[in-house]
Parts: sequence; C-alpha cells; structure tokens
Amino acid sequence: MAGSTFGKLFKITTWGESHGKGIGVVVDGCPAGLPLCEDDIQVFLNRRKPGQSKFTTPRKESDTVEILSGVFEGKTTGTPISMVVWNENQKSKDYSEIASYYRPGHADYPFDEKYGFRDYRGGGRSSGRETIGRVAAGAIAIKLLKQMGISFLTYSESIGPVCIDKSRFDAEEILNNKLYMPDATAASEAELYLEKLIKEKNSCGGIIYCEVNGLPVGLGEPVFDKIDANLAKAMFSIGSVKGFEIGDGFGVATATGLSNNDSFVMAGASRKPIKTSNHSGGTLGGLTDGAPLTMRVAIKPTPSIAAPQHTVNKSGEDIDIEIHGRHDPIIVPRAVVVVEAMAAITILDALLENMSSRVNRIVEFYK
Amino acid sequence: MAGSTFGKLFKITTWGESHGKGIGVVVDGCPAGLPLCEDDIQVFLNRRKPGQSKFTTPRKESDTVEILSGVFEGKTTGTPISMVVWNENQKSKDYSEIASYYRPGHADYPFDEKYGFRDYRGGGRSSGRETIGRVAAGAIAIKLLKQMGISFLTYSESIGPVCIDKSRFDAEEILNNKLYMPDATAASEAELYLEKLIKEKNSCGGIIYCEVNGLPVGLGEPVFDKIDANLAKAMFSIGSVKGFEIGDGFGVATATGLSNNDSFVMAGASRKPIKTSNHSGGTLGGLTDGAPLTMRVAIKPTPSIAAPQHTVNKSGEDIDIEIHGRHDPIIVPRAVVVVEAMAAITILDALLENMSSRVNRIVEFYK
Amino acid sequence: MAGSTFGKLFKITTWGESHGKGIGVVVDGCPAGLPLCEDDIQVFLNRRKPGQSKFTTPRKESDTVEILSGVFEGKTTGTPISMVVWNENQKSKDYSEIASYYRPGHADYPFDEKYGFRDYRGGGRSSGRETIGRVAAGAIAIKLLKQMGISFLTYSESIGPVCIDKSRFDAEEILNNKLYMPDATAASEAELYLEKLIKEKNSCGGIIYCEVNGLPVGLGEPVFDKIDANLAKAMFSIGSVKGFEIGDGFGVATATGLSNNDSFVMAGASRKPIKTSNHSGGTLGGLTDGAPLTMRVAIKPTPSIAAPQHTVNKSGEDIDIEIHGRHDPIIVPRAVVVVEAMAAITILDALLENMSSRVNRIVEFYK
Amino acid sequence: MAGSTFGKLFKITTWGESHGKGIGVVVDGCPAGLPLCEDDIQVFLNRRKPGQSKFTTPRKESDTVEILSGVFEGKTTGTPISMVVWNENQKSKDYSEIASYYRPGHADYPFDEKYGFRDYRGGGRSSGRETIGRVAAGAIAIKLLKQMGISFLTYSESIGPVCIDKSRFDAEEILNNKLYMPDATAASEAELYLEKLIKEKNSCGGIIYCEVNGLPVGLGEPVFDKIDANLAKAMFSIGSVKGFEIGDGFGVATATGLSNNDSFVMAGASRKPIKTSNHSGGTLGGLTDGAPLTMRVAIKPTPSIAAPQHTVNKSGEDIDIEIHGRHDPIIVPRAVVVVEAMAAITILDALLENMSSRVNRIVEFYK
Repeated sequence: MAGSTFGKLFKITTWGESHGKGIGVVVDGCPAGLPLCEDDIQVFLNRRKPGQSKFTTPRKESDTVEILSGVFEGKTTGTPISMVVWNENQKSKDYSEIASYYRPGHADYPFDEKYGFRDYRGGGRSSGRETIGRVAAGAIAIKLLKQMGISFLTYSESIGPVCIDKSRFDAEEILNNKLYMPDATAASEAELYLEKLIKEKNSCGGIIYCEVNGLPVGLGEPVFDKIDANLAKAMFSIGSVKGFEIGDGFGVATATGLSNNDSFVMAGASRKPIKTSNHSGGTLGGLTDGAPLTMRVAIKPTPSIAAPQHTVNKSGEDIDIEIHGRHDPIIVPRAVVVVEAMAAITILDALLENMSSRVNRIVEFYK
Repeated sequence: MAGSTFGKLFKITTWGESHGKGIGVVVDGCPAGLPLCEDDIQVFLNRRKPGQSKFTTPRKESDTVEILSGVFEGKTTGTPISMVVWNENQKSKDYSEIASYYRPGHADYPFDEKYGFRDYRGGGRSSGRETIGRVAAGAIAIKLLKQMGISFLTYSESIGPVCIDKSRFDAEEILNNKLYMPDATAASEAELYLEKLIKEKNSCGGIIYCEVNGLPVGLGEPVFDKIDANLAKAMFSIGSVKGFEIGDGFGVATATGLSNNDSFVMAGASRKPIKTSNHSGGTLGGLTDGAPLTMRVAIKPTPSIAAPQHTVNKSGEDIDIEIHGRHDPIIVPRAVVVVEAMAAITILDALLENMSSRVNRIVEFYK
Repeated sequence: MAGSTFGKLFKITTWGESHGKGIGVVVDGCPAGLPLCEDDIQVFLNRRKPGQSKFTTPRKESDTVEILSGVFEGKTTGTPISMVVWNENQKSKDYSEIASYYRPGHADYPFDEKYGFRDYRGGGRSSGRETIGRVAAGAIAIKLLKQMGISFLTYSESIGPVCIDKSRFDAEEILNNKLYMPDATAASEAELYLEKLIKEKNSCGGIIYCEVNGLPVGLGEPVFDKIDANLAKAMFSIGSVKGFEIGDGFGVATATGLSNNDSFVMAGASRKPIKTSNHSGGTLGGLTDGAPLTMRVAIKPTPSIAAPQHTVNKSGEDIDIEIHGRHDPIIVPRAVVVVEAMAAITILDALLENMSSRVNRIVEFYK
Repeated sequence: MAGSTFGKLFKITTWGESHGKGIGVVVDGCPAGLPLCEDDIQVFLNRRKPGQSKFTTPRKESDTVEILSGVFEGKTTGTPISMVVWNENQKSKDYSEIASYYRPGHADYPFDEKYGFRDYRGGGRSSGRETIGRVAAGAIAIKLLKQMGISFLTYSESIGPVCIDKSRFDAEEILNNKLYMPDATAASEAELYLEKLIKEKNSCGGIIYCEVNGLPVGLGEPVFDKIDANLAKAMFSIGSVKGFEIGDGFGVATATGLSNNDSFVMAGASRKPIKTSNHSGGTLGGLTDGAPLTMRVAIKPTPSIAAPQHTVNKSGEDIDIEIHGRHDPIIVPRAVVVVEAMAAITILDALLENMSSRVNRIVEFYK
C-alpha cells in the first residue's frame, strides 16, 4: 500500500486525487541553504498545467503552488518541504455513469479488485494530476543540481508517427511550440496529425527524450541501485510509460561489441579519460561514466477517448461506451517536464549517496 | 554504497566477486513452511552456469549451491536463507595488464573514480557471476509462486539480427537448444551467426522475453511502486540491460487510443471481466490487470572482445588493446534465467505487500 | 536529512514548524475501507492541544484537523491520507532575541551546526507541535486496531516526585483530571507540586505508562525489527524522551532467572498457553507473547523555563538569559496521547508485516 | 519477516542459527579504502566468544571469522563485505525433549505461533550467537570511526545487585576481569554472587554502560531518525534488553528544568560552545551536542536455568522442567562488545547521512 514515497536521501512523498481538495508533496531530505520561493516551482508547474493549447484538456486550473513548510528567510532549512496545489475546478460533472463501468486502458478494474472500491472522480489517485507533486519536487532538485553545473535537456522526440529531424534540431525551439519539440517543422506536422485525431475522437502516444549534462563520474551504486535501475523505476512510475531506454536502448540487441563499445581517449586540459562515442548513454556498470546521460521514454496514447468502445460494468454486463469530458488527445507534451523532474530527483539522490563512497573523502569532510 | 539489497518484504542481499572466495545471497523475509533443498536451487543455477556450449565462457565452474541457514527439517523457517556458490576456477591468470587500463564497455573507469581503486580480477563485483545470487533467490520465489498457480515463460526472442518466428513458436524447444530460443530454426541461424562472430573476435546482443501467467488482479502499489516500475528497476539492475518494455512497449508511441486500449468482456464460468487483447502487457495504472504480464529486455553485446580496441591506461596514455581470456560471445542465453529470477522476486514481493490492501481482509486474516 | 518518515507498510511522513503555516502528516499504506472522518482524528488531537489547563501553554490553538486526501465516501481508499492542522496563533512575538543565543536543553546549537542556520520561531521543527502529525496518524491506527479487539491504556504514571498509587488505580479517572493520571489523589498532589514549580519559574518531568491489550501472538520480526526495537525507536523519536522500558525494564538488572521468567500454563476454553506473570511485558524474543504489552517512557522537564540560566550567544559571548513566553511547566500530560499514537502506529505496521509469515496462510489468502 | 537488516547507508544483514552451519553477516555500504583483515574483526569477536571463564557457557567455539568478499589487496572495496563464523560444536545433544515444550523466558512459543514450527536446536535464530554478525560488522565501523577520532568506552556497570563504585573507576581494569567491570573490587564481589547463583542453578541480569567520545555536533536526523531513536532501536534489537536510557534516563522524571538543563559556555582555544554538565547524555533534539554520548542498557537474567520451572508442552500439557546443558549464568559480560558494536554501526550510519545536510558543503565536496 505504501507506494507514494520515492528516494532514499532526497525523498519525496506525494498525495492527492484529481478531484479531491488538492495535490501535494512532501520533500524530505532537501539539504539546507538552498534559496527557494514559490516562483522557482511555478515555472516548472506551468510547463505541465492544463489549458495551454487545444491539445490539452480544457480543464481550468491555475495549478498555483503554495509552500507550507521547510523554507525560512528564503532558504531551505533541511526540514520537510511541504507543497500543495489546490484543485480549483474539480466539481464539474456527474460521475455516476463513469463510476458504474471499467474504462479500457484505465486502472478502474484493478483498483476495485485491490481496494474494494475506488475514488472514481477523474481517475482519483491515478489521474495525471498526481504528477504535480513530482514536478514541484523536481523543480527543487533541478535548482540544486544547477548549482553544481548539472543541466537537463528534455523534449518530445516523436508525437505519434511524427519524429523530429535531428538535422533541424533547435533547443531554443522546444519552449516555442506547444508540443515541446526541438524542431518547428515536426511540431507543425504533429499539430496537423493531432487535429485529425481530435476529429476522429482518438488519441496518440509518443516518445520523450531526456539528456543530463555535467554529471560527476561514478554516480549510482553497483548491483541493484545502478543509476540505470533507479532511473528506470523513476520513469516507469509515471503513468502511461510503457518503454524505457538508456543510450542505444533496444538498438544494442542488433549491435556487436565492436560497434557498441565506446573507446576512451585522454582529452582536455585536465587530461581526463573521455569516450569518443556514447552508445552506453553515459553509464557503465550502473555508474555514470562522464558522458551525457541519455534516456528515451515511450508514452502510450491517452486512454480516454470519445470514440465508442466496448467494456463491462460493475453489474457484470457487456456495454458500449463513449468517454466525454476533458481529455488530452496526447499526454506527451505535458509529460516532458515530469520526465525531467523524475530524472533530477533520481540523480540528486544518487549524488548524495555517492558522498560516502571513500573513507578518505569522509575523513576529509569531517576535518 | 548500499546497493546490494533488493525488495521490501521478500528481500535479497547479494555479495561476492568474480574471483573472490565465492558468490552468495541472503534471502530475508521468505515465508516459513516452504519445502526447500539445494536441488530446487541448482536446477536454476545450471541454466546460467558457464561451459554449457561453445557460445559460453569455457571457465570451468560447477556453480554448486550450498544452503547455510534458514532451512530446517526440509522447510524454510522464516529466518534468513543464506546461500553460497564457491568459486572454483578463479586463479587462472595474471591480471596485472588488465589492472592497468580501462576496458571499453566495462565499469573499470567509473569504479576507480568512485572508490579510488577496484578489484580488477575478472570484473570483480561487476562480473556476470554476481547474478548467481539473484538466480538462487529467484528459484525460491518461483517455487513459492508455483504453489499459487503463478508460472513463468522466459526465452531468447532474438540473438543479434536473428529473431524467432512466432509461427514456429514451441515452448518445448526452449530448453532443447543452447540459446534458449522457442524456435529451432532461429536457434540454428543464430548459432551460425555466433560462429561467424567468434571468428571475427566480436560479440553481439539480443532480446529476452518474459511472460508471467496466473497472477491475481491488483498486484503492485499505485504511484512509485507500480508493478511496472519495480520490474523496470529489477531488469535494469542486471548488468548489460539497456532497454525494457511492458506490453507493446515502444510500439505505443505510434499507436492510437483506439488501437492500444484493451476492451473488457465478461467471461468464464466465474463471469469475471477479462481483456480481449493485451497491449497493456498485463498492467493498468501500475497494477496487474488479470492478463499475462509481458516484458521485453534488451541486452547489449558482451563488451569483452578479442578484436583490437582503443582505450587509455591509468598512466593517462592512449593505447590499443586486445582482451583475451574466457568470454561469452553472447550474454543473452545465460541471462534468460536471470530475467526470470528478477521477475519472480519482484512479483512475490508485490504479492506479499498486497495482502494489506483491505481492512476487511486483514480483520478476516487475524480472526 | 530524510528523517521525517516512520513505518514500513503503514507509513507516516510528518512536516511543519511551530510557527509556519501549519503542521501536517501524510499517512501512506492505510488499508482501504476504514470508515474515517475528521471527528475520529479530532478527539485524539484534543487530548494534546494547548490551553487545556493552567499546566499547559496558554498559546491559543484549536488544533482543528482537515483531511485533504485518501478518504472517499466516508472510507479510506488505500491511497495517501494527507492531514493538516493550520497554525492560528503563530505570529505572537519578536524572536530576534531568542534567535541570537542557544537555549539550554534545546536543539538550537546542534541545528545551527548541522544546517548552518535554523527556523528559530518557537523551536521550529523541534517544537512539540511536530507531534500533531503523529497523533493524527495514530488516531487512524487506533481505530483500525480497535476493529481487531486491540486496545490501549495510557496514562501519566508519575509527575516529578508524585507517583500514582496502584491501590487507588481507576481507569475512569484518567480523562477526569488534567494530568491524565488514573489516581485522583496523586493528581491533586501533582497539581500542588506543579503550582509550586510555576511560582519558582521551574518545570519538571515524569513517566508515561502504556499498555496494549488484545494482541495476536507473534507480532514483530526477529533480530532487528523486534517489536521491542521498533517501539523503542518510536518512543525515543518523541522529543524529550530519555528512557524506555518494556515489562520490568531496568528492574531485570537485579532480578534472577527464577524471579524473572514467566511460567506458561494451559488456560481458557481454547486451552491456549498463557503466562502466569508478565515480567517480560508481553514480548519474548522480540515477538508478542500473548500477554499485555507494557511500556514505560521517561520524559524530561520542559527545558524552557523563566528562571535565569547561563548560556552563550551566536557572537560567542557568555550570557545570562530568562526565557519568557508560552511554555508548559510539564510536558507529560500532553505527551500521553503521543505515546499511545506511536505505539499504535508501530503495532499496526507489525501486524501488516506479520501477514506474510507463513506460506500456507498466504496461499489460503489468495485462494 | 524481513527483519535481519539494519542501517540505511552502512547496512548490515545477519543470518544463521545457533546449530546451523554457521553465523554470518553481509556489510553493505562500507566506504572504500579502509585497511581491513580478519584480525581486525577477531579481536572483537574474542570479547564475546564462549568459554572465557566459568561464568560463560562451556560450549567450545573458537568463533574464527572468515572474510568472504569486499576486501581486496588489504582494503575495503566499497562492495559488500561478507563474513562468516562456522559453527564447530553444534551437534552436541539430543533436542527432542526441548523441542516438545516452551521454555519460560524464551521465544519458543511465539516462534511456533508465528511460523508454524521452529528450529529448536539451541534457540535457533534467537540464540545469542546471532550477535556474532553484529560484532563483526561493528568491528569495521569502530575501526573506521577511530580514523576520525571517535572512540568508545563500554563496560558492565552492574551485575545483579553488585554495582561499580565510580570512585574506584579504572578503565584499564575493564579488560582485566572476566566481567568487563572497570572496578576490580566490584568484579570480585560480582564473581562471588555469580558462584552462589550457579550453585542455586539460577542466573541474573545487569546493566551495561556505553560512552562515545569525539563525535561531531549535529549527527542524527530530526524527528523519527533522531540519533537517540536509532540507538534505542539498535540496543532493543539485542536479545534480552529490557531497558534503555540516554544521559540521566529515568532520572529526568524526578528532575526539574533548572537541574536538568545543561548550560553552555564558550571554551577552548577554538572558542566553541560546550556544556558545563551532561544530563542530556550528548544529544539535544535528537542531534549530537558535542558532549560524550552516554547510554545505559538493562539486560535480563539468562532465561535458561537448571532449577525446576513450570511450563507447557506442545501437546497442551502442564509440565515441570529443568533446563540442563551449556548456559551462561549471566549474559552481561559477553553483551558488552555487542552493545559497543551496535552503537558504532548506528553512529557511522548517522555520520554518513549527515554529509548531505548542507548545500554549500555538497557543492564544495563535488568541486
């Protein structure tokens, strides 16, 4: 039952339902002395909030964050940072119908089987709104990591069949289009594709790419807490994720040792070993290897569609349904910041744990 | 540093290096009363042990398991089950050369950066032999799950470019060929491909498929401990894994809601809801949905190859190397049972945690 | 840093400072189907809220709890239950003076050393108000345990030198006097003693007794998660606790095996083994033994006193201070419900984990 | 079930039964670079091994430790350190009788109720031999802490009614007498008392004192992971412990704020705040305060006594028994090193976690 906490040293616990009083998170283990205010968080929440375009739910939510604890005189104190976003637009419809049946692609049926009943309003705890807490916590991690020169590059790599063209890659463009794609042309094509889907009362999926730069070498713990393993869990804990890759991912299945191994060379003024390629995606043996950490996440199509579907109701009858209401035809663009947030939380946690890897560094630290 | 423990209620802790005294695991939280003897474990270890064919390392190891605690009068007692496999063939060569440089595709460099030095004998803790402890623990989980009608189907889906042909699928065949493929024809083609690679002093990767049948509905915990998330971590904690999918995996990126949603119908004598398709791979909202749990794992090519490669040594010089010694041209076949073991451990843990999901069931349990 | 979470399956995370916006708790892992409303919580919070008598701080707080998530249609859903008590009376004084020095008996100095600075308003995170979250979570655990016939008897055993007289023990009396003592005479004596202390600008400590009845045999996990060990941690995590005993506690140091061992006899209609004495306090080998679980907790005197004390300030000067403001001359009475809450949380967690102790019971559960 | 692991970053997992093949521990999270060999461990194990005097069990065990992993070229590698002590003298008697009944003061009855049966040979997992793993792990923690100037002073403060006289305190004496008392006179008196008990086929308890010097200020995490709380759990996880105190312990119950508060003064060349007294026992608000950490642990009399006792057997009959065989009339002396080991493990873990308390220190660490 206790599945709402993530992390070991930098630890987050989320709570809240789509149509409850609000959505929140408690961040425990945030180091003291980080300058922090609500604006630092809000800018990230705004990247996932609804109503940004015709491709996101029309549900009206300002998603304004409030910090309830853990910050004093503008800095984190080292004690739990409790944050909440109050739901504003939750009492908008009658749920008696939706309560009666199991929506295809949704958690309705497993929830009833597991708990005996469920909060059926807007998906309850399974709603995408649950990710608000992750983004708020991730904003803190990202701000702290930035102080150490660690930065993130995250965007929509593909929307349905429309994939970006690397030759047109433009990081500036990511925040210029509503789909968070680094390729204006692909973004336009994707918009046309989405408009067609909306007409067809259908939805689609896509792929999110995330890259982390500036990482120290050696983050992650061998065996079960490999940085790869913790990132995989972080990403698969996001609703609708069905696939995850690091580096060349499934491409390694058809590669050979010769083509897949990254050679080392001595480089730079500091004469440190660096890799001449990055098929590994920045990890070797579960530890960061100095190259950018690269990941790809596959997101399934929004299961809520207005087109007719077959399912069963709680009375055990086979029925046909049409799900109306406020749904995104595509989750990918709003999930981009969620992926970035989960990556940051995982990496900060690994960074803190890695401090105790060597006796001499510990002795030095306490001198 | 503490990355060698996995699981919450059914908890395993592994130890040991490739060329140390042995490899072991402590299984804590195994319920009491399970009949268990060394043979129950050995049959699984034999599926991953070396020297099975010309496609695995010639290193001579019987990989004989010894149970040191937790079993009394032929049954588990509920206390920790400590198991060990003593290394028999570890003093086989001079490692002074390999100690001096960083092998491409290996963890040598990150280990030195993280810990200041490393046990360079055969990869030390990063060796594939570390998985012995996982397989031994998984054998226990599989035996317990079998009592509940939960079974596993795991095999090599592809070896390099050679993929099985579903029309020729034959479960019986899996244990008949050295590559653990359910398709004799594909297995033969793959063997020819591997012989060619061996001549070229090269190696290749592949894909492992794992399916779990007979699961109750509702296993997994919403949000961070989704069954998907814990399985993703379990698989990515296995060395050489670079990609993981559940159900249609990356295929969902180009699917639509209409094509990807699985419809429910009432079926069977028990008139329970079942799905007419399984794009979801047996999970909805992070909980099992009654359909078979299906996963795919991408394994990279063995990084140790005899062909010449460029790298650097600890003195900071650029050098060319050839890695000789005892290496598998392909890891996939021996990793099949490791994937199955990690899946079983993860599922048993979820099954135990799920027991506390409903107040009335708890009250009933203690009556 | 991440020290604000307690429990494994029934897991609580608290947040908030004395003079922040509020104090809260997230209860994750509460089984689904428990009828729950704010009144169920409030009755417990009222037992610790300030302003109950001249022996508690005059700070005006209604300590009204609000449930923000996890409850739907009057029952727990199995998802996180977020609860908050908003601070009402926090902006009552100027803290610049108190911010400048280190109060004897308080955490001021260690906090500054650990975090670089501190929220000095009313003790910040170290304030007794932090226990509000524990009591709110404990109220849920107690309600669930009640359904299984598990009950608690908790009271002030001694206030300073005034100890209850077992011959006058009256459980009814506990809620009749402001000191929560089961002995009206002792309570009156203690009140006189406290009045004297108040005149002297001094404070005192005392002992809290807690007894748990109706427990199944076998709760707790051998070795590190003994029920004794988890209760000891639970109690010592409460501010001001300096001693803990189970059963005869320190009395065993001068006892002998003959006097300390509890004999078993067959008894009752069910002919089960029961003990003829309870020196062990209801645990053997870290597991409940069927007898009432008995504990004693020693609470130190309130460190905040108006009498003159010597200390140092942040400028490194030796100074004399007098701490004025709103302080309890005795913490014990208000801590009684906190001890009960922590005991309940610990026991419920052990009860849930114990469900997976036997294979046959697990198989039966999932049939 | 999973109660055999302790610690968060410096994490130990113990296994083994009194009469199984051996007793072991896996230490995961030990920082790399600590010089370590078996002698470093053996010296601590020798302090608890049997057969040291007529006051300990005559069971013949050399308790020789073997390191199986995690050490390379004489230094810890950062990977799990697996250690084992093989049981040499476990097949010494017929247990059929002891298997049939429930010994008073032992865990026999709760174990049968929890697990359905038990390993009844010499107490199985509940045997005092389980502490061997703790001592071996503690030896590593103590060696690492010594490098940071952190030292331990642990001894028997009282044996039954015989308490040491502080005026005769002599640290040198502790290892000179078999009872580990820092007072030769008290040790002699205690020996006479024990000889009398042995004649009477009886046993007794006592108190162990532990003091830790040289700790940095601020170790421990506020709220649930207070250093006090984790130490309380560590001590109560040791079999036979029934009471725990920090500083003045239960004495605070009758103290006043004026007498119990420790004043600060500026002192030393470094002009740091220090306390002029140490009623708090070195902790304030759950964090170390710069003064010595002082603890007292109450140990119950050995439950195994040869004198006649009443109990019941598994057939549900009331019977009288006499427990013969190899038992200590007193556990205290051998438990002294166990208490020291658990204290060291707890403190090292807190020390590692404390490294992530401040942003600026983390940024500095990674520069």
